[in-house]
Amino acid sequence: MAVDGEKAKGNFWIKEVISVKTQRHTELIDITAAVNQLIRKNGVKEGIAWLFVPHTTAGIFINEAADPTVCRDIEATLERLVPWKGGYQHLEGNAAAHIKAVLTGASQWVPVEDGRVKLGTWQGIFFCEFDGPRFREVWLRLLASAVD
Amino acid sequence: MAVDGEKAKGNFWIKEVISVKTQRHTELIDITAAVNQLIRKNGVKEGIAWLFVPHTTAGIFINEAADPTVCRDIEATLERLVPWKGGYQHLEGNAAAHIKAVLTGASQWVPVEDGRVKLGTWQGIFFCEFDGPRFREVWLRLLASAVD
Amino acid sequence: MAVDGEKAKGNFWIKEVISVKTQRHTELIDITAAVNQLIRKNGVKEGIAWLFVPHTTAGIFINEAADPTVCRDIEATLERLVPWKGGYQHLEGNAAAHIKAVLTGASQWVPVEDGRVKLGTWQGIFFCEFDGPRFREVWLRLLASAVD
Repeated sequence: MAVDGEKAKGNFWIKEVISVKTQRHTELIDITAAVNQLIRKNGVKEGIAWLFVPHTTAGIFINEAADPTVCRDIEATLERLVPWKGGYQHLEGNAAAHIKAVLTGASQWVPVEDGRVKLGTWQGIFFCEFDGPRFREVWLRLLASAVD
Repeated sequence: MAVDGEKAKGNFWIKEVISVKTQRHTELIDITAAVNQLIRKNGVKEGIAWLFVPHTTAGIFINEAADPTVCRDIEATLERLVPWKGGYQHLEGNAAAHIKAVLTGASQWVPVEDGRVKLGTWQGIFFCEFDGPRFREVWLRLLASAVD
Repeated sequence: MAVDGEKAKGNFWIKEVISVKTQRHTELIDITAAVNQLIRKNGVKEGIAWLFVPHTTAGIFINEAADPTVCRDIEATLERLVPWKGGYQHLEGNAAAHIKAVLTGASQWVPVEDGRVKLGTWQGIFFCEFDGPRFREVWLRLLASAVD
């Protein structure tokens, strides 16, 4: 399904959903390839992509995708700053996950060029599970300025 | 005042301002209903909404709107990480508020569908007062892809 | 080079790059004037500007531009929360810079009005170097809704 040229001229946003099945309680998952797959599927050549996380105990950020120890350090530092057990008022027991979600953020924007996300050399897009394992979604919206 | 169809086809952004009168020094205020009211007022059926905070001691985030203890835990954790009295250089005495504003962020984007913000089940949009009480503004911009 | 009116009606994004030569290891640099210069150069009168940082040890935020002690306090607090030496796994030694980049964020959006960014009275846009000195870039994209 490719965008037709007429639609690409207006404020037409392509809507897709990325499903993420998390495996651990805290998990940072590189979703860059999934985003690129949906850009290709929709025939978007150039534009922008917006990723929105509709959850309150999950976040999203853009950072180093080459060395997985960076994600380990991000996880550990967030846990040190916002420990799981912290005398919180919220009775569900996952207040720390909500706070980590606020610190990382609910959405990210990325440029699209040549039919894929245009990131810096070392960057990837990471979905952040802070209270898993769960079935999660990331809502993707693409605004095309050029199509195949 | 509804958007006419012709305007909705271009890069026409509807501009609105949400006024917020904060009551406490630190206060997280759910502004989701105010955003929905302005979406309805402008006849936007589908599109995106952008909320920008033009202040340096206030922020905005999207998180749990159902249980108010989550906001209490977010407030308390930010205060623990960035205490009001912290040996700061800034002479106005509100350095902590500036830093909390950086950690939460100056703007948020939300999808609009069916004439209202489309959020996850538990999500709401929260204005963050970190140095109140004050009169504050949130600038709303709406990009319509479909109108009533 | 000004945008022609026809292009401004579609999803045409003007692309520019701001080059930043950082001088210190940690440095917060006000790039508001550089953004305004590129808005003027492109003849954009009204629209939105998006700033994306393609690095993993640098960030961007919007906060107080009037008193430089605010930036000093932001730098010092980030260093206290995420110290450079912290028993990290990442072997390059700059894990703290990656984590600070996640906390500040990879991109910011700002309104454009009257041919310049429209910010709150005290706000400026700050590029954050967390592992300098280096040559850095900020990718600017402008979406014009009105042009000169």
